[in-house]
Amino acid sequence: MTSFTYRRPVFVSWGDCDPAGIVFNPRFFHMFDTNTWAMIAEVLGVAVPQINATYGLLGIALVDVKANFMKPAKFGDTIEIASRVKEFRRSSFVVEHKVTINGELAIEGEETRVWAMPRADDPDKMRAGEIPAEVIAKFS
Amino acid sequence: MTSFTYRRPVFVSWGDCDPAGIVFNPRFFHMFDTNTWAMIAEVLGVAVPQINATYGLLGIALVDVKANFMKPAKFGDTIEIASRVKEFRRSSFVVEHKVTINGELAIEGEETRVWAMPRADDPDKMRAGEIPAEVIAKFS
Amino acid sequence: MTSFTYRRPVFVSWGDCDPAGIVFNPRFFHMFDTNTWAMIAEVLGVAVPQINATYGLLGIALVDVKANFMKPAKFGDTIEIASRVKEFRRSSFVVEHKVTINGELAIEGEETRVWAMPRADDPDKMRAGEIPAEVIAKFS
Amino acid sequence: MTSFTYRRPVFVSWGDCDPAGIVFNPRFFHMFDTNTWAMIAEVLGVAVPQINATYGLLGIALVDVKANFMKPAKFGDTIEIASRVKEFRRSSFVVEHKVTINGELAIEGEETRVWAMPRADDPDKMRAGEIPAEVIAKFS
Repeated sequence: MTSFTYRRPVFVSWGDCDPAGIVFNPRFFHMFDTNTWAMIAEVLGVAVPQINATYGLLGIALVDVKANFMKPAKFGDTIEIASRVKEFRRSSFVVEHKVTINGELAIEGEETRVWAMPRADDPDKMRAGEIPAEVIAKFS
Repeated sequence: MTSFTYRRPVFVSWGDCDPAGIVFNPRFFHMFDTNTWAMIAEVLGVAVPQINATYGLLGIALVDVKANFMKPAKFGDTIEIASRVKEFRRSSFVVEHKVTINGELAIEGEETRVWAMPRADDPDKMRAGEIPAEVIAKFS
Repeated sequence: MTSFTYRRPVFVSWGDCDPAGIVFNPRFFHMFDTNTWAMIAEVLGVAVPQINATYGLLGIALVDVKANFMKPAKFGDTIEIASRVKEFRRSSFVVEHKVTINGELAIEGEETRVWAMPRADDPDKMRAGEIPAEVIAKFS
Repeated sequence: MTSFTYRRPVFVSWGDCDPAGIVFNPRFFHMFDTNTWAMIAEVLGVAVPQINATYGLLGIALVDVKANFMKPAKFGDTIEIASRVKEFRRSSFVVEHKVTINGELAIEGEETRVWAMPRADDPDKMRAGEIPAEVIAKFS
């Protein structure tokens, strides 16, 4: 159902890599985060920094993340990160990220994010809000 | 059985935080990695940069990692990261990380790492080696 | 005159290092930033995240930074970063950072920072404010 | 003389920014480093990870770096980083980086790098090597 896939090439820079010459794992979570924002922006047709204001969000809060490293990405590689919403729940959604190197699957990641709205009694605090049907529809 | 827990306080710096004023999630995976090395060094009595050479390792390769974010860590917080080996398998082990803020559990993480030895036919390539019994014994 | 020196040991972690096995240069600027905040907090007796609110600041904005790399810091080193205010001007100050490895000077850095106050006509915008005499006095 | 300018657009991601919502200064030094490698690769017609091997280098070691921050880059901005060799010396060169936001100059940086060759008596140690005339010629 949720079929839109956002794809982004990423050049693996010197500073992304560790003494083994491969991407230090935390860097992938930064790349995943950037892809999630970019995917939402593209699907909703709203620039990245306007997403929160447009939907009255405090944020799209990360609650769970994981990754599985099958093949290392090396200094100088250009990798591709393909991201899509795998599942929408009432107030959260799961984003799947697949990193390929020369077309071969190398890393799989998954983020669970909450549609975080301000609380009525304390607008600086978050509550899990209901994801608007129109938002979900645009991803299909 | 594997009861040794390595604890490290970490000051949350300005540069660890994102525009929401909380630690950007990838930073925790860097902290977890640092804790895993430090825990191994302390248990085995070998300085961090000598671990690989001492045990004939190419590395302690990360194959899976995950985290669950319950409470955010904020700029200026001093958090504690407590890490222990949860399980030893033949050639891999699972490290559990618990981040507490003022004694309250805030983030849980888990890394699966492989005891990576050089291959006989190509010493630059990794194979999963058997974790020495003496290593496992020191963690108990 | 401005003689207080703040000293902090920093363990060089795997993720701080690049494929040459040495600290990737941008990491030092993160360390410098953290030291500047910590030095100010210690001198003024105010916790790091309360500094801005206590002095009515928008921030202590960085306008210039530089570093000179004489000796590399390697994975597993414990380095020391010694930081002090080298000079106070009307609305800015210069922080000098010296990184030593086993007591030997390895990197020198310098930050110029502005005492950034909110503008009367637009409190989200910065103006260079006068550094209070009591602040300067505490550093002497 | 050294007129080739390498230009790269960079999207400012959430994780590049600090609690003030602007790029945390160390991130620019990572961007500068990436641009320097990419510029050299493009001028010499050698892929980034082959540069060292092609020229018998241990690296292109950074000895000095500085930056001047005039305007902040914000979350969601697309900035441009324009880099060129400002000066070649016998065994070092100076790279100038100019960051523009919507065409306006926002940050200026400068790196001094050494053409680092292996020492004859100890090939793991660096010496400043003479930059080949053909390399310098390609930048003109």
